[in-house]
Amino acid sequence: MPLSAPLTREHFERLDRDDPLGASRARFDLPTGEIYLDGNSLGAMPAHVPARIEHVLKQEWAQGLIRSWNDADWYPAPQRTGGKIARLIGAQANEVIVADSTSINLFKVLVAATRMQPGRKVILGERGNFPTDVYVASGVAELTGCELRCVEPDEVLAALNDEVAILSLTHVNYKSGRRYDMAAITARAHEVGALVVWDLCHSAGAMPIDLNGAQADFAVGCGYKYLNGGPGAPAFVYVAERHIPHVRQPLTGWHGHARPFDFTHDYEAHPTIDRLLVGTAPQLGILALEAALEMFDGVDMQVLRNKSVALCDLFIQLCDEQLAGLGVELRSPRDAAQRGSQVSLAHANAYPVMQAVIARGVIGDFRAPDILRFGFAPLYNSYVNIWDSVQALREVLESGEWDSPEFIARKSVT
Amino acid sequence: MPLSAPLTREHFERLDRDDPLGASRARFDLPTGEIYLDGNSLGAMPAHVPARIEHVLKQEWAQGLIRSWNDADWYPAPQRTGGKIARLIGAQANEVIVADSTSINLFKVLVAATRMQPGRKVILGERGNFPTDVYVASGVAELTGCELRCVEPDEVLAALNDEVAILSLTHVNYKSGRRYDMAAITARAHEVGALVVWDLCHSAGAMPIDLNGAQADFAVGCGYKYLNGGPGAPAFVYVAERHIPHVRQPLTGWHGHARPFDFTHDYEAHPTIDRLLVGTAPQLGILALEAALEMFDGVDMQVLRNKSVALCDLFIQLCDEQLAGLGVELRSPRDAAQRGSQVSLAHANAYPVMQAVIARGVIGDFRAPDILRFGFAPLYNSYVNIWDSVQALREVLESGEWDSPEFIARKSVT
Repeated sequence: MPLSAPLTREHFERLDRDDPLGASRARFDLPTGEIYLDGNSLGAMPAHVPARIEHVLKQEWAQGLIRSWNDADWYPAPQRTGGKIARLIGAQANEVIVADSTSINLFKVLVAATRMQPGRKVILGERGNFPTDVYVASGVAELTGCELRCVEPDEVLAALNDEVAILSLTHVNYKSGRRYDMAAITARAHEVGALVVWDLCHSAGAMPIDLNGAQADFAVGCGYKYLNGGPGAPAFVYVAERHIPHVRQPLTGWHGHARPFDFTHDYEAHPTIDRLLVGTAPQLGILALEAALEMFDGVDMQVLRNKSVALCDLFIQLCDEQLAGLGVELRSPRDAAQRGSQVSLAHANAYPVMQAVIARGVIGDFRAPDILRFGFAPLYNSYVNIWDSVQALREVLESGEWDSPEFIARKSVT
Repeated sequence: MPLSAPLTREHFERLDRDDPLGASRARFDLPTGEIYLDGNSLGAMPAHVPARIEHVLKQEWAQGLIRSWNDADWYPAPQRTGGKIARLIGAQANEVIVADSTSINLFKVLVAATRMQPGRKVILGERGNFPTDVYVASGVAELTGCELRCVEPDEVLAALNDEVAILSLTHVNYKSGRRYDMAAITARAHEVGALVVWDLCHSAGAMPIDLNGAQADFAVGCGYKYLNGGPGAPAFVYVAERHIPHVRQPLTGWHGHARPFDFTHDYEAHPTIDRLLVGTAPQLGILALEAALEMFDGVDMQVLRNKSVALCDLFIQLCDEQLAGLGVELRSPRDAAQRGSQVSLAHANAYPVMQAVIARGVIGDFRAPDILRFGFAPLYNSYVNIWDSVQALREVLESGEWDSPEFIARKSVT
């Protein structure tokens, strides 16, 4: 690659035969006859998860009852599952814990970070970031008397100055798939004395991440995209070990207490990452996520990234070859070094086009106003999926079949 | 009742035969040979929950994938499940939503309530309340510049004055089982211009509650005690319809937005109770809770309360008859009108005594420093359970078998 002759389906079949991650796909329960390219919205189900959850329900809950908090090790599930995520994001096990949702974890670390920066009053964000990141930061700004300042992605580095308490960015943009250089931006932020909060929703599990190597301060991310934890799976939060003793997060629930079962009147934060906990851990969600993470056992994240890059590059190359003149435009970076594991295309009628593509069994998604979004999960997407999905897209665009009432009517979630 | 002759096991067997809720017990999956009196910590599992969750996993997640947010009605699950809880707590369906944990919901409504009371700076709480309620209120006080003032339970009414912005109480105390008069206290708080937040963790599902009748302002509660939603089930939050338009809660995540899938830059709170949502709803937890709530279908909450009172009264009467001189003391109100659905006993060696009782197959729990706690869940506890559990307790105390290293060693969660 790049290849000079037009690509053929045989080329993709050969890549699948040589794929070191090829065996992983069979360990997912995927619908037959469909191609799933929306793992960046909801990851597919590892086939062993239902048996694990059946055991949790019928044995641990029904038979063990309250005893399972000890006997089935429910109590340390947030730490244990966080430790498994830690390896995927370049953190130590004692720096990551699973809890609540991404939005709530973001709230915790943003408030904690403002408290560590008493002389500064600016939270620097990005226009075009995933909305909840901006909404939560605006909520934090209002509560803490800070100013939320949002700039265009290209202006972030220039906007870093000694007023900035916190820089809050998403590593890979949900819409464009554009990826920030975590190490370079973190280093520049530290030069001006700012702390950085990274949202890893669209990168955790899709590529190697090196939070420790980048000297990252805080990070959050979700469990239900590339980590395949299931719908609404709990999220994770990372705090660099050097910051943990100084973190005072505002959601002071009993599970973040130093000794929750002493039931003391006054709050005292746990000395470890446990201080990021709030209420009772959602066991069904955590244990499903923990089971799902077994899919990463033995996986070299660089091998996974290599496949992700190949899938995206080939998708782009095929779009160039086959969709010319059909009204689509690449909206993700062409350079893999600046991209996550998705490719976004723009089309003036993206919503009905995506519905028509889905009707052909290729499941991507739409993001307003005009984005066709395709996510590539190296653990279960094959190379042939790329070929077949571009054929479906071409057929939908050439035929104009998207221009039909059934595809134009909006659903509540797209 | 009260009966003059000493009670016998036959009396309890007869009560079970006449129990209008007797058929409900068989619909739970309970361990054979054990008596479960800890439903006020973790409710038992309704036997149909695993089949529902298996369908959620294997069909809705694995096959439906992202489409299930629409096609399997995942998206409205928080509202739908909240609506089912509403009937149990005397609220309208549009006033209750399922989300996050009790601690986090408490944070939301406490901050929202302080914002509705700009001239007042006191959050009035109770010493002896469940710790997370106090911890969260202290976190809110610090963030909002309020003062958290905690008084003894008997001093609450006297402490209500025109400085008080919010009164934050738990309806039924987790340790003593003592119950506040919700209507009277709410009325008195309103007279002095305070808003009231009720924590229903130990009453929702155990008795009729009439939030609307009491003109209650806000309430929160958990899904995993008497509602039987499973370990760490999501919680619920109630906001009186008259307050919803004025509620500005601080956790401004995207699912609380008026149009979350428009992905606009600025936060705009949803006009309905949906504004209490934050991140993506934890579907496994919510759907398990929703299924579990079917156990309340067709149940008259007054009939349920009558059984709860009978179970507690009989337990107390038996303790009086059979445990005299064995070092136990009643720590719950003797008057049912002042009590929830639990009975707490004090004993100088409560921890090992409870472990020895558990070893005999009667599962209650310990609360520091000296409380033996027994919760009675009318949907699955029988009258004979009362007789048998007091026999076990008597045998443990008479034999002194609790005084053994195996029972004295502490587990992390008790």
